Amino acid sequence: MRTSIATVSLSGSLTEKLAAASRAGFGGVEIFENDLLAGPLAPEEIRTRCADLGLRIELYQPMRDIEAVPAAEFARNLRRARHKFELMRRLGADTVLVCSSVSPSAVDDDALAAAQLSELADLAQDFGIRVAYEALAWGRHVSTYEHAWHIVEAAGHPALGTCLDSFHILSRGGDPKGIEDISGEKIFFLQLADAPQLAMDVLQWSRHYRCFPGQGGFDVAGLVRHVLRTGYDGPLSLEVFNDVFRQAEAGPTAVDAHRSLLLLQEAVGVADMPAPVVPTGIAFAELLTPDAEPVAAVLGALGFARTARHHGKPVDLWQQGEARILVNTAGAARRDGTQLAAIGLESPDPAAAARRAEALLAPVLPRRRGPHDAPLDAVAAPDGTELFFCATGHPELPDWRADFDALGTGRPETGVTSVDHLALTQPWHHFDEAALFHRSVLGLDARESVDVADPYGLLRSRAVGNTDGSVRIALSVGAAPTDDTVHAQHIALATGDVVAAAGRFRAAGGRLLRIPANYYDDLAARFELPEEELAAYRDLGILYDRDADGAFRHCYTETVGRVFFELVQRDPGHRGYGAPNASVRLAAQHAQRPAR
Amino acid sequence: MRTSIATVSLSGSLTEKLAAASRAGFGGVEIFENDLLAGPLAPEEIRTRCADLGLRIELYQPMRDIEAVPAAEFARNLRRARHKFELMRRLGADTVLVCSSVSPSAVDDDALAAAQLSELADLAQDFGIRVAYEALAWGRHVSTYEHAWHIVEAAGHPALGTCLDSFHILSRGGDPKGIEDISGEKIFFLQLADAPQLAMDVLQWSRHYRCFPGQGGFDVAGLVRHVLRTGYDGPLSLEVFNDVFRQAEAGPTAVDAHRSLLLLQEAVGVADMPAPVVPTGIAFAELLTPDAEPVAAVLGALGFARTARHHGKPVDLWQQGEARILVNTAGAARRDGTQLAAIGLESPDPAAAARRAEALLAPVLPRRRGPHDAPLDAVAAPDGTELFFCATGHPELPDWRADFDALGTGRPETGVTSVDHLALTQPWHHFDEAALFHRSVLGLDARESVDVADPYGLLRSRAVGNTDGSVRIALSVGAAPTDDTVHAQHIALATGDVVAAAGRFRAAGGRLLRIPANYYDDLAARFELPEEELAAYRDLGILYDRDADGAFRHCYTETVGRVFFELVQRDPGHRGYGAPNASVRLAAQHAQRPAR
Repeated sequence: MRTSIATVSLSGSLTEKLAAASRAGFGGVEIFENDLLAGPLAPEEIRTRCADLGLRIELYQPMRDIEAVPAAEFARNLRRARHKFELMRRLGADTVLVCSSVSPSAVDDDALAAAQLSELADLAQDFGIRVAYEALAWGRHVSTYEHAWHIVEAAGHPALGTCLDSFHILSRGGDPKGIEDISGEKIFFLQLADAPQLAMDVLQWSRHYRCFPGQGGFDVAGLVRHVLRTGYDGPLSLEVFNDVFRQAEAGPTAVDAHRSLLLLQEAVGVADMPAPVVPTGIAFAELLTPDAEPVAAVLGALGFARTARHHGKPVDLWQQGEARILVNTAGAARRDGTQLAAIGLESPDPAAAARRAEALLAPVLPRRRGPHDAPLDAVAAPDGTELFFCATGHPELPDWRADFDALGTGRPETGVTSVDHLALTQPWHHFDEAALFHRSVLGLDARESVDVADPYGLLRSRAVGNTDGSVRIALSVGAAPTDDTVHAQHIALATGDVVAAAGRFRAAGGRLLRIPANYYDDLAARFELPEEELAAYRDLGILYDRDADGAFRHCYTETVGRVFFELVQRDPGHRGYGAPNASVRLAAQHAQRPAR
Repeated sequence: MRTSIATVSLSGSLTEKLAAASRAGFGGVEIFENDLLAGPLAPEEIRTRCADLGLRIELYQPMRDIEAVPAAEFARNLRRARHKFELMRRLGADTVLVCSSVSPSAVDDDALAAAQLSELADLAQDFGIRVAYEALAWGRHVSTYEHAWHIVEAAGHPALGTCLDSFHILSRGGDPKGIEDISGEKIFFLQLADAPQLAMDVLQWSRHYRCFPGQGGFDVAGLVRHVLRTGYDGPLSLEVFNDVFRQAEAGPTAVDAHRSLLLLQEAVGVADMPAPVVPTGIAFAELLTPDAEPVAAVLGALGFARTARHHGKPVDLWQQGEARILVNTAGAARRDGTQLAAIGLESPDPAAAARRAEALLAPVLPRRRGPHDAPLDAVAAPDGTELFFCATGHPELPDWRADFDALGTGRPETGVTSVDHLALTQPWHHFDEAALFHRSVLGLDARESVDVADPYGLLRSRAVGNTDGSVRIALSVGAAPTDDTVHAQHIALATGDVVAAAGRFRAAGGRLLRIPANYYDDLAARFELPEEELAAYRDLGILYDRDADGAFRHCYTETVGRVFFELVQRDPGHRGYGAPNASVRLAAQHAQRPAR
């Protein structure tokens, strides 16, 4: 199917928007009037630019407050429409959106509305233009798609059809089943937007909180299925008003947008997409660092041993149990030091996983490998983290460990058994994109987003994972676009005994995050923990949480660059991440930064 | 009356919050449990710190999910309460907040709730503590203040009273009149918060959008009047959950907060405050610049003449009609160049105006004047703009112009008659504070906030002014805390003929902001303007707006540093600022910046 996006959904000048839409793979655009008015290009120049970019101008919008008004006002409206139709002719746009009137002078008279829309369609026809009439959810007299269609049907004009908008229909709790009663050739246009389920004024909801399909709470795919059953053969077009997207870079937003339409097509069965290949474990986490020593000191104290070295690159493999950490000093490290740069995901079919990611617009990473390296499929997540699809220890598939030479130095401890989870900080403008990416590209389940109080703002965090818990990733985002208070990038290591593991770490010279005594007084008030258990937690800075599925005990190391480690003792069945303790941890991290 | 603020209303560590509250003049605080838990100070140390800062600990909060539960659960709750009462004894806090239960195990049984709260109060009494029971708007069974009071009354326990919270009462549309039926000594605490009128889920509304009294849509003062009639003699205490305040610097937020309580006390008649002195005109606008030449070139082209120079400082007075602009090269200019740094406001009583500002916590500026300078009263607005209270041409009062020596150079044109309005950009975290400041300190009226679409985010703008329009200030704020896309700091000059004024400016070598041709095609579609009028607008880049009160014609100069000028021809009665044209202006300003 053709795909399209309204220019209002992207930031920047009209030409920036068009370039971003084209690069992301859209075949068309809706030109939003204000974007045209505010730009220096003449309509003919915009037409040429779109043609050069392979973009069809699917719609010009909007016309407002046209119908069901007194004759003198309608005459002025027709005069205005003639100007717009002339402009559309220069632009090469053949469909115009007319929103149901919100004007105080509009009357509740369907016959008048139909007659005036017919007259408008007569004029439009002279210009080779079609009029798509849409019910705004807050229209004065016409606010449902059924009502708008009733008026269009009554008018019976070949140049007059209806435009359906998933937000306007689903925000009012409308039943999209009735769409099937409309004949497909009279649906002139289909606009799509999702939205989080917010109990708020529908106009504000629509203007500020729309999002791309799959990022909110509406069943957009269900609606599209009804539309397709009518025989509709126009484009799927995104029209998303969102305060965050208005600020974000247009390029990544357009990619996020187009990915959502690909997924929607997959969901309704009109796209042939490689199926998701759900990862089955964490093969490794890779730290990029300008200086391996501080990281090595922490890893050593945690009981890891440097067991192997890449045969062609300055990358060391540190291991303990099934937890593997690569320390890479290959020079691309950021000025602010050590970062979590890549994740190896165990995959039953690495090549198929990479094909799906590529089909869903994830940048495929060049295989910067030497002639003797194992071929590794890798893509970039929206936050830039490199995701490698691995098949560790599968004899029939290449093994990334074949590129490493065993060192025979040291022997790891046994306290840490595996990676419990990885925590990644997300770019502020692309938090919803990140969740959709991990769900759709990797086939992971996403949990609800939770708010966490940092002393300097409210963070949001959302976990994704597979069903058996062998892959867990926590995605966090700061309170503001430039928030530098987030200490959330970390590697959480699973242990069967956090007290022992933390004690060993400290005895080996590691520094644990200190937790205030007040926290333990509160723990004593909330849980009836044995004295000595509480004393050990207090001594080591171990945090505690419990729900019906069991307990979660965890503590944190000091931060190296932008990364720290967590030791986690998770009762079987507990699915949390210690969220109730996050604000205590964040406050302690702030307090234990060097004084300003 | 005593004033207090909940630590959750301010950002930072507990000690940062306490210091900010004390500096702003609060006499007390509510200690929010999480702030205590997450900090390194022991309760005794917090007690000492508060005493040192002159802060009384008015409340410890909250206790949750205590009452109307099965016996075993209540026993656990009492155990938890004992821990907290011990903590409060160490802290020196004598009142605890208990919120009505939201627990699924709570039952709808007022008698049980009363009995269990009595038992809790028994225990509290042993510690010299009072229990203040509050109805959360989303409480499971108890969600109104009347209901909470009914339970407290039924319990009849001397250590059990009620806590009233303006948000919980007014968000549900509750009638605060019934408060007068409660006896004052049983109102143990009063929490105050305002909120914008949003039709949204009350829990989300409460947690993210509360604001200080006077910044939202609730009649907080009306509620307080009812409370005072009961004989309540506890503190007025702010409890404001707000995503923006969580990120903002605690110091300015605390000042904003305390100002709101001073205004509230004035509104209910329990504070003796100097009355507002409404300004009656703009005496001058002062530009601070590292280099006077670019500004002088624009002012000269606009028809201003340099008519006088300060006798002791490098400040020039440029004048045309009643518009006076000071150009100050005294060296404090920012690196990014020319800025609008000060405003002279005509005042019927400058000294009284300054007294009110000082009483409302505006920093009084040192009078950096020489021995022969006229005394000028000045304060700083929240955005740092200096406000001078002037009495230009009043023989009985000092005249700031006496400090200037006439130059006799040049003669101004006559196209510009006065300053139409001034536009100031506000720090992102303090937009609501700015509006309240201008309303309360200066006695100006505030108009509704409007959204303006910049190509890189949604800006907000709000105008304040006096009734005859001789003082108009537009306050704008960017889309994000670090938004550098705002070009809104400007001086708008009134003219009776904008076509003539703009033409003269261009003929004199001035550069006008170019407006796209598409805008004029749209103007032709929307308004039936005479051909030659439209041609003149198109030629000069003049924007046009019209409503029932008349037309507004305006155009913009190039930007110098961070400042530009607007020429405005305003029909008598038109009260707008050309908001419908703002997105076109912003897009043009972005497009006409040097290429990146």
